[in-house]
Order: sequence, then structure tokens, then C-alpha cells
Amino acid sequence: VDLLGTLRGILGAGDLLTGEACAPFESDHRRLYQGRALAVALPRSVDEVARLLAACNAARVGVVPHGGNTGYCGGATPDESGTQLVLSLARLNRVRSVDPENYSLIAEAGCVLAQVQRVAEAAERHFPLSLGSEGSCQIGGNLSTNAGGVHVLRYGMMRDLVLGLEVVLADGRVLPGLTALRKDNTGYDIRGLFLGAEGTLGVITAASLKLFPAIQSTATALAAVADPGAAVTLLARLRAASGDSVSSFELIPRIGIELTAAHIPGVSDPLTAPHPWYALCELASSRLGEPLDALLTEALGAAYEAGLVRDAVVARSGRERAALWKIRESIPEAQRHEGAGLKHDISVPVSALPQFVERGAAWVAAHVPAARLIAYGHVGDGNLHFNLQGRGADGPALLKRAEEVRRALHDLAAGLGGSFSAEHGIGRLKVAELERYAPATELALMHAVKRALDPNGIMNPGKVLRRS
Amino acid sequence: VDLLGTLRGILGAGDLLTGEACAPFESDHRRLYQGRALAVALPRSVDEVARLLAACNAARVGVVPHGGNTGYCGGATPDESGTQLVLSLARLNRVRSVDPENYSLIAEAGCVLAQVQRVAEAAERHFPLSLGSEGSCQIGGNLSTNAGGVHVLRYGMMRDLVLGLEVVLADGRVLPGLTALRKDNTGYDIRGLFLGAEGTLGVITAASLKLFPAIQSTATALAAVADPGAAVTLLARLRAASGDSVSSFELIPRIGIELTAAHIPGVSDPLTAPHPWYALCELASSRLGEPLDALLTEALGAAYEAGLVRDAVVARSGRERAALWKIRESIPEAQRHEGAGLKHDISVPVSALPQFVERGAAWVAAHVPAARLIAYGHVGDGNLHFNLQGRGADGPALLKRAEEVRRALHDLAAGLGGSFSAEHGIGRLKVAELERYAPATELALMHAVKRALDPNGIMNPGKVLRRS
Repeated sequence: VDLLGTLRGILGAGDLLTGEACAPFESDHRRLYQGRALAVALPRSVDEVARLLAACNAARVGVVPHGGNTGYCGGATPDESGTQLVLSLARLNRVRSVDPENYSLIAEAGCVLAQVQRVAEAAERHFPLSLGSEGSCQIGGNLSTNAGGVHVLRYGMMRDLVLGLEVVLADGRVLPGLTALRKDNTGYDIRGLFLGAEGTLGVITAASLKLFPAIQSTATALAAVADPGAAVTLLARLRAASGDSVSSFELIPRIGIELTAAHIPGVSDPLTAPHPWYALCELASSRLGEPLDALLTEALGAAYEAGLVRDAVVARSGRERAALWKIRESIPEAQRHEGAGLKHDISVPVSALPQFVERGAAWVAAHVPAARLIAYGHVGDGNLHFNLQGRGADGPALLKRAEEVRRALHDLAAGLGGSFSAEHGIGRLKVAELERYAPATELALMHAVKRALDPNGIMNPGKVLRRS
Repeated sequence: VDLLGTLRGILGAGDLLTGEACAPFESDHRRLYQGRALAVALPRSVDEVARLLAACNAARVGVVPHGGNTGYCGGATPDESGTQLVLSLARLNRVRSVDPENYSLIAEAGCVLAQVQRVAEAAERHFPLSLGSEGSCQIGGNLSTNAGGVHVLRYGMMRDLVLGLEVVLADGRVLPGLTALRKDNTGYDIRGLFLGAEGTLGVITAASLKLFPAIQSTATALAAVADPGAAVTLLARLRAASGDSVSSFELIPRIGIELTAAHIPGVSDPLTAPHPWYALCELASSRLGEPLDALLTEALGAAYEAGLVRDAVVARSGRERAALWKIRESIPEAQRHEGAGLKHDISVPVSALPQFVERGAAWVAAHVPAARLIAYGHVGDGNLHFNLQGRGADGPALLKRAEEVRRALHDLAAGLGGSFSAEHGIGRLKVAELERYAPATELALMHAVKRALDPNGIMNPGKVLRRS
């Protein structure tokens, strides 16, 4: 049977790319992987997705779901065989409905995150998922990778923002479920299996998402602290003192300021003297005119008196606020300017974070002295991007030690009750890590679920779980 | 083989009840079911639970996990055969650890909910799950039924409060996972399957739970409104105006005031004139001295000016606050004084709630005119306990129409995108309802998951899913 002919029959010729046209879908954002696709399908409806999957399942052809291609683990890249179909959700990009009184909306998988944020805003509501790639990442990818970002502390991960899902299963059956209910205790949480499964159990085509009251007041500050321990204590105090309205709390090391100031136009150190660590804190409230600036200034003042904070600047305008955020958000780009590096996305309990940084930095200093440590991230979630950066010509030598460094840092995280992948997922990059760190019973259950939902193993083969 | 002998060998003779001693475990709280147990096991450790399950799995003996026995659907009651083992978690009742800086604690399944609330309080933290039976329900049951209650609007269901789980599988394998991480994207959410599974997939033995800053300020009011639509609009405004600090928002009908005032000592109508509906609103904040009373008074004043609220009383003391809550919390007890009734636990999108009440009330008036409607519940979650109450001698006649009434109300909820079981679950009572309303594909996946995790079907047989 001619599968491509069948697929073309389902989609129309213009929506099935082959040959050269597939190139943008064949490598990942970080260029870790270069695959080759059988073809790229761009369906325009759930029904087309269902018929595509049924055809691929019958033909035992692997399907690689593809969103905004901003992932860090190669989860959306086909393998090198040229036998896998890339399934782009980009044309399923409608916001189907908005229900402000229910604080919810329904978005298709191909909606860009920023588009969903804007639609919510237009309805005087707030969709809180926010991450660096929000201008290009897609909701389907956010759902399939259980995306995190800078507001997890307050609103949770993508998983926590979902009320309902519509999913196409491996065999083409459609699992409906775009309910907008806050409470629905009717059996197993089947839909939850697809969140964070990276397209290995089925294809999410749409989701019913939670909204929140529009943010009316914000206060943002950069506080200099002596060490991560001070940042953790500051956060715990700020949560209580602000009525739990801390919406972001990001740790930035001195080198983060230096590298962004060096490479990113418009970034400069907002404080007069250098400090070893910084916390970017933001309070947010839906209450119009709530004096959050005063509250944040007072709380930081008290922390200064207590010796917890060494210096701080509170943004006095939207422009100043944007400038503070630009430091944090430009760190990955600034790192790229410095050449090759090693990235790690670990999490530990918030209370164990200072210990992780201390021991991790000591290990790096002892074993990879040439590397510069760039440890930044989401303190409130215990999530650090614990990255090592080479210096010019040292880059390639550092990359050769990737395995040794990863082992040391992931072992350290595991020893503190942590995770080797806090928000980036598994994809293709961390399959062996999952096998190493997941309890054997848990891994066995994951394989059992995979077999039950995708018996022919066509869904994103080799991602998350090794092919069995 | 003598299974009871084996079980006694695992537990010691004192921890295996047989005969008369099993009676308290053989019927449910509402006395809908009267079963007969082979025996009741009271293990004291996870290891004992694991060995019990391994033995029962080998012998193909059904196991019925049992917590505080406060469920509404018979989920913890053995069948009539006398062949099922009741597994009480009551003696696994330690809070294993508290980590205030990580805002988390680890509690065993047999901990009573109120005990967990107290331990959190002692650490200046807040565990927000709160429901009428909190003095006797157990954490394991809360987890297994994904309990709701009066703070879901602000903090979510039990599912949303879980960071990690420890589970014993049907064959006795232990699935570890008491992590305290806010972020951990490492494969499928296997643990999520056990939340809300009512013990049909395995036995939850402990959980790592989220804590929040201790509540320092509270404001509580009872507002009289014309109809549920006004309550929904009031809630949407109050969420925005209060910086999303509404922690409860409960709808009470006039008859709720009348019945509680008649039957419950100390309850009286706090307003001077009668009104058709009431909203019990509470704001809460961890900010010390936050003027929530003033904020609530002002917001209700504005709503009064706008014609949304007809009268209101704001509690001026802890005693007054308790008196307002007593009305809401005594409704189920007051109903019991009135004799037989029919209970329904529906949810719809919050925006569809007024429509549900209007159409549901019209149906009841037309088809069961002798019944009194007592519709109350959690407006913020779209969750209503839509109950019909007989009058004295009419009670038995009303009960005979249970099936017809249930069908009409559940069909109405389904037609509005709602659920026939918002927070009470399925248990034994609603197995046929689940089969009727769940999409066929979803039901098929539930059975596939059940087969994958409990191939011999020993876990709480016949609950949630029909035995296959």
C-alpha cells in the first residue's frame, strides 16, 4: 500500500510535505539531533489527525508530534531512519471558546502560548503560563511536556492549569473530554496520562484551560543576597508577608548579570556594587490599586535590616520592570554567545536547594575547574538550570566531559530527593537517565501503560521510554 | 492454603479481626450497603501492607481498602459474599516529616485529616483541604477519592495538593515516590492514576502534601441574593476585587436556613428578613493584619448598590464566623432529621450553574411536587448538592422514584457539559452511571489501565468499574 498516497488523500497534497520541505522539522531547537522524516503532515482538523493516526497505526509507521519545536530534549525530532511521519499541529490553532464567568477557555494544540495569553487578556482574564519561548511554543507542546516557567510558584505547572483534554489515540480513536469543570470525580484520571507524556501515548489536539483574574497590580524587584540560602529564606518570608502573592522568584548568579550585560543590548547591572547572588522577585494581584510596591519595599527593607538582603532595587515603571526581567530572560541567549556549554535542569526540595548549589559548585570547582558555573532558575520550585560554560577554545573539551558531569550532578540531585529533569522532560536526550533514576516498579508501570495505550508502539517511538 | 493463617502470620493475631468484630467495617456511613467481610486487617507498616496484598493476590482474594468510612458511595464497604478482606489503614497514622521551608509534609494514609491540619498549623503552615468529616476522614481516603470540600476554589482538589505518593500495588510491589518536588518532569504521571481511583488500582500508604502560608486574616459574610445567577456574578467580582483571596463561596437556599434553624441547636437566621438564596463568602490571607473585613464590607456594599446583594452580615468575631459556618455545615445533619431524601452531587461549568438550578428546580416542581428541593454547595467549583427531601410519610414514596429523578438530573448536568459526580466519586453506587455517561473510549481506557495494574482484579472489586 502507498502510505504517502493515503496520507495525501486524507490531507490534500498541499498539507503533506516531503523532501527538502521537511528540513525545518528535522532538527531540534538546540541542534542536538538531526533526523530525517518520511514526510511532514499538517492536518487542519481533529478528524484529519484521527485518520492520519489510524493509517499510520495500520501501517506500523512511527508518528512524531511536533509543536513549536522549542523543546530542550529532542522530543519533537524524528529519528535518522527516514521512516517516521512528523505530525505538525501548527494548523490546529484556533481558540475555540472563552468563558470568562467560568474562568476558562478552550484552545487547540497549535495555538501559540502568547496567543492564548492575549485572548485571555482581551476577556479581562489571565492565563499564567509564561516562559522564554512563549512567542513560538505551542499549547500542545506545553501540555505534552507539562511546561513550567516563571509562574509555577503561584499557579503550578501546565498540568495544574488543565480542566479537560481532547486526545487522538494511537489507533485513531478520539478521546473527547473538553470539559470545563473544576470538580469531576468520575473514574481514573486517564487524561492526566497524556500531560507530560511527550506525545508517546497519543496526540493532544485541544485543551480546556483555567484562567485567573486579570493582573491589575505588579511589583518587581531585584534583591542582592549573599547565597542561595538567603534567597530561600527571603522567599519563605515573602510568601507569608505578601498574602502568598509572590508570582515569580528567580535566582540569578553574578555571572548571569555579567554575561547578559556583555552580550545583550540594553542590559546593565541595576545595582551599584556587584553581589554574588540575586533574587528577581515579583508580586502580582488582581486587586486594582493594591499597594504592592509599598509592600515589597517594606518586606525587602525588613529583610535588609535582618541582614538577609544586601541591596535591592524596586522597579518604578513598566520600563524598569522590563529591564529587570530582561536580565533573567536573556541568560540562555547570553550563554549561546559564550559558546559550548553543558545544561542541567535539576530540582530538589526548596529547602535542599542551598545544599545542592554548595555541593554542586564544589564538585565543579574540583573536577572541571576550567568551566564557569551558571546556576539560575526558579527558587520557588526548587528548580535550577545548573549550567557549565566553557571559555572559547575550552568549549569542545568541556562537551567531552558531559557524561561525567551529568552523572555527578544528577546523582547529587537524586541524593537530595531531587529530579534530573524538572521541567524539560525526557525526549530523546534523557531516556537513559530515566532508566537509571526511576524506581524499577515505576518504569515497569510506564511500559505497561505504553503497551496498553499504544500496543504497536507508533507514538513518538524511542522518546521517554526505550522501544521495547 | 489457609489464607487467614497466612494473614495472621503477617500481622500478629491482634491485628486481624474476624466475626462480630468486623461489623463496624461492613457497612457504609450512609447505610446504603451492608456487606460481610472475610476478615479485617489492621497493618502497622507499609511492609505489612505489601505482604498482605501479595498473599491476597496469590489467593485471588479481593481486598477492600478502608479509611475513615465517611464516603458517600459505598467505596469502602465489602460485598455480601464474605470472601473479601477489608484492609484498614487506620494504624498507619504517623505524620512522617514536616518541611516548613519547602512548604510540605509527609503523612501516612491513616492520618485523620484534622490531625494533618493541626500538624501544619504547629509549623506555621496551612493544609487547606477542609470538609465536613475532617474530624474522622483519613488522608488515604481523601487521596483515593480526590476529596473536595470548601476550599477547592482557592486551593484545588486533593489531587492538586499532592507532591508525591507511596503506593502498594496489587501484587505487593511497593511504588516509592514520596518526593517533595514542585517540578519533576520525568515520564508519565503514574501516581496520578491512584488519586481518585478509590483503591481499585493499589493501596496508597503515604503522601507528600503541599502546605501554604498560615492564614493570618479572615473575613466571613453571609450575603442574601435573589438567585444563583447573582451569586455567580458576585463571586466573579469578588475574586477580582479581593486579589483572588476568596477561599470559600458556598450557596445556601432559604430552606437550608430554615431546616438548620429548626433542627440544629444554636443555629438561627442571622438576617432580619428571609431571602431566597444566600452566599457564604470567606476571604483569607496569610498577610498579618490585612484589612479583609473592610475589603469584604466594601465589595458587598458595592454589590448592594449594584442590586446584586439584598442584604448581608459580616462576622465581627470568631464566634459569629463559626455561627455562619455552622449553618452551611449542618445542612446534611438537618436533612437527616427530616427523614429520607435523594442526594445528587453534580457539577457544571460555573457559568452554567444558574441554568442548572432553574431547569432542575422546574423539573422537580413538575415531576416530584411533594419533594422539597435543597440545593446547596460550592458555587466556585460549579458543584451543587442538589438534594430532594421527602416530608415525613412521603419519604419512602420519594425513594422509590430515585432512579427517575437521578436520570433527569444527571441528564440535565450532562447536557450542560457537567458531571454526575463532582466530588463524591463512584464507589459502588455510581458504577452504572459511569458506564452510562463516560465516553466509550474513556471507559475502555479505564478498563485497560485496570487490567495493566491489577491483572487479577483483586483491588476493591466492583467499585468504580464493573468486574470484567
